[in-house]
Amino acid sequence: MSGYLERVIKSIGPLDGPAMVAARERQHWLTKPRGSLGRLEELSVRIAGITGNPTPRLERKAIITMAADHGVVAEGVSLYPQAVTREMVLNFVRGGAGINVLARLVGARVVVVDMGVIGGFPPTAGLVCQMIDFGTKNMARGPAMTRQQAVDAVEAGIGIVEKEAAGGLDIVGTGDMGIGNTTASAAICAVFSGEPVAKVAGRGAGLDDAQLQHKIEVIEQALKVNRPDRRDALDVLSKVGGFEIGGLVGVILGGAARRIPVVIDGFVSGAAAMVAAGLCPQVTEYLIAAHLSAEAGHGLMLRHLGLKPLLDLGMRLGEGTGGALAMYLAEAAVRTLAEMATFKEAGVSDIENS
Amino acid sequence: MSGYLERVIKSIGPLDGPAMVAARERQHWLTKPRGSLGRLEELSVRIAGITGNPTPRLERKAIITMAADHGVVAEGVSLYPQAVTREMVLNFVRGGAGINVLARLVGARVVVVDMGVIGGFPPTAGLVCQMIDFGTKNMARGPAMTRQQAVDAVEAGIGIVEKEAAGGLDIVGTGDMGIGNTTASAAICAVFSGEPVAKVAGRGAGLDDAQLQHKIEVIEQALKVNRPDRRDALDVLSKVGGFEIGGLVGVILGGAARRIPVVIDGFVSGAAAMVAAGLCPQVTEYLIAAHLSAEAGHGLMLRHLGLKPLLDLGMRLGEGTGGALAMYLAEAAVRTLAEMATFKEAGVSDIENS
Repeated sequence: MSGYLERVIKSIGPLDGPAMVAARERQHWLTKPRGSLGRLEELSVRIAGITGNPTPRLERKAIITMAADHGVVAEGVSLYPQAVTREMVLNFVRGGAGINVLARLVGARVVVVDMGVIGGFPPTAGLVCQMIDFGTKNMARGPAMTRQQAVDAVEAGIGIVEKEAAGGLDIVGTGDMGIGNTTASAAICAVFSGEPVAKVAGRGAGLDDAQLQHKIEVIEQALKVNRPDRRDALDVLSKVGGFEIGGLVGVILGGAARRIPVVIDGFVSGAAAMVAAGLCPQVTEYLIAAHLSAEAGHGLMLRHLGLKPLLDLGMRLGEGTGGALAMYLAEAAVRTLAEMATFKEAGVSDIENS
Repeated sequence: MSGYLERVIKSIGPLDGPAMVAARERQHWLTKPRGSLGRLEELSVRIAGITGNPTPRLERKAIITMAADHGVVAEGVSLYPQAVTREMVLNFVRGGAGINVLARLVGARVVVVDMGVIGGFPPTAGLVCQMIDFGTKNMARGPAMTRQQAVDAVEAGIGIVEKEAAGGLDIVGTGDMGIGNTTASAAICAVFSGEPVAKVAGRGAGLDDAQLQHKIEVIEQALKVNRPDRRDALDVLSKVGGFEIGGLVGVILGGAARRIPVVIDGFVSGAAAMVAAGLCPQVTEYLIAAHLSAEAGHGLMLRHLGLKPLLDLGMRLGEGTGGALAMYLAEAAVRTLAEMATFKEAGVSDIENS
C-alpha cells in the first residue's frame, strides 16, 4: 500500500460521541412524540457523529459518478454493447441522464469522472479525466488490473473528493457507469461475503435465466483463475474489480477521512464499499445506504456491510440515482433536527419536564 | 348526502388512459435499462393518468394539515394532554413543527385548518377556520358527531382544496393533528376492514401495553354503542370519526375531482382515505400512499385500500410529514419522465429499435 493511501485510512477515526449525544438530546425535546420521526432521527444523530456538528447542515452536495469499461464483457455477460459506457458518459456531460435529473432536483452537482472508458475522450467540459487504462483486462482469464493500477484508481478517487471538499462539500454520493460492472461487483461480493456466486449475481440491465447462468459461470471462473484473497482488499479489487469501483473506494475513504457523510448508491457502489471496508472496517460508520437495489445480492451485500437501506423502490439504474434520492432524506433528517421548535420554545405541553 | 358532495363524487372519473399509454411509451425510450427506475416509473405513469398530462409537472404543492379535538380523550386513550392539539396548531402557524420544516424543504405551502379545536382561536394569520364544533363528542358514549356535521366537515375540506386549486395546485398532501385521533382512526379502520380492533389499534404517541389494551376496549365499546354501518361511509364518519378526518375526506375527494394527485400521509390520513373510498371507490386511483407508519394497523389499512407505501422509515408523527417526503419522490418520478433524454436524442445504443 502506498504512503498516501495509508495516511488517508489512518486518518479515519471514530464518530464524534459528544456531537451524537447533543443531537440525541435535542431530538428528545423537539415538538413531536419521542421517536416519531423514526429513522430520520437515527440518521440525524449519525450525521452529527460523522460531521462532528450537533446540528449539521447538508447544503453543498455532490454526486461523483465514475465510469470505466470492463474486459470481462468479452465473455458476453452484458445485454448492452460496451459502447454504451462511453455514450452514457456523454449523456451525463450533456445533462440528459437519470442522475442529472435527480441531482438537479436535490441540488447536487454531478462530477463525471472517466476512470478508464475504452477510446477515451478529448478534453470535454464537465468531464474529469482520471483514466487508468482503456478498460480492465478480462478477469475470466487473469487479473482485471495490476495492484499498482488498483492503488492508482483508489488514490484518484481520494483526489477527486479532496478537490470537491476544498470547494465546499457537506455530503457526497457515489455513482457508477460501466457496462459489465455488475459482474465485477458480484465477484467482489462473493469474495468478501463468502457466499456462492449464484446468490450474489443478478440480472444487471435485464439478463434472462440462461444469460444469468452464463454470467454466474464466468464469475466462478474468474474466482478460480485469480483466487483473490479476501484479507487483502487491494488484491480483490485488482483481480476482479474495475477502475470505477476502485475510484469509488477512494471517494468513500476520502469522504470519511474528511468527516463527510458518504451516500452509497446501489450494487456497484456497494461493492466499492466492501473493498473500502476491507481496507478500513471503521469506514462503514460514515456510510448511508441509499436504497435496496432490485439487483439480486444487494440485500446480502448490505447486511454484510451492516447497513440498512433508506429506500426500497425496485430501482437498479446505478449512476448514483438512488443516492440522489436518499440525499434528500438525509437533508430532511438534519433539517428537522436543526429547525424544529422544542416543547419549551413552542409552549407545547410535554409529558416530561425539561 | 347533500347535492354538493354528491356532485363532487360523481365528477371523479377514471384515470386518463391515453396519457398513461403516452407516459409508458416515453419511459420505454429513456436512456436507462427498461424498468430500472422501478416504482418511480409506475408512479410517473399513474400521475400522468391522474392529471391527464403525459409529462406532468408537480411544481405547486400544498400540504393541508387539519386539526380537531376528540371527545373520546375523556376515556384516557392518549398520553398527551388535550391542550396539545391547540398548542401544536400555534406551532404550525409559527413554522416550528415537523411539517413546517419538511414542507419548506420540498417547496410546499402548509395550509393549517382548524376543523374543531377546543377553545377555538382568535383570527390568526396563516390559520383557516372551518370549525364544526369545539371537538367531537365522546364516541364511547354515543355518536362523535351528527350526520350533518360529518357532511359539513367533508364539504369544508372540498372547499379548502377548491380554493387552493384556484390559486394553483399540482399536488396536495393530507396532514392531521388531534390528540385522540388514532383512536378514531382505528375505529374507522376496524369498521371498514372488518378486522378485530386489537389488530388495527396502535400505540399512538407512545402508549404502553396496559394503556393500549384500554384503548382497544374503548374502541370496542364505541363500536358496540354506535353500530356504524360500513356500507354507509358518512354513518361511520359521524359515529366514530373526527372533524379533521372528515375535512381530509373532503380534501381527498376534492383533489381527485380536480385530477390532482393526493398524497396520503399516515394512519389518520389513511382512515380519511377509507371513508373517501367508502363514498367513492374509484378515488383510490388518485391516491399516493406516502409511507408505512409505525402505527400498528397501518399496513392492514393500506392493503385494504389497495395502496403500497413509497417509504418505510418507522415514522409516526402525522401532520403530513410522511406526505411531504413522498411528494419529493413524486416529483422525482415526473421529472425523470419529462427531463431524461431518449436513446435517440442522446445517441446511446439501444437493444431495441425505435
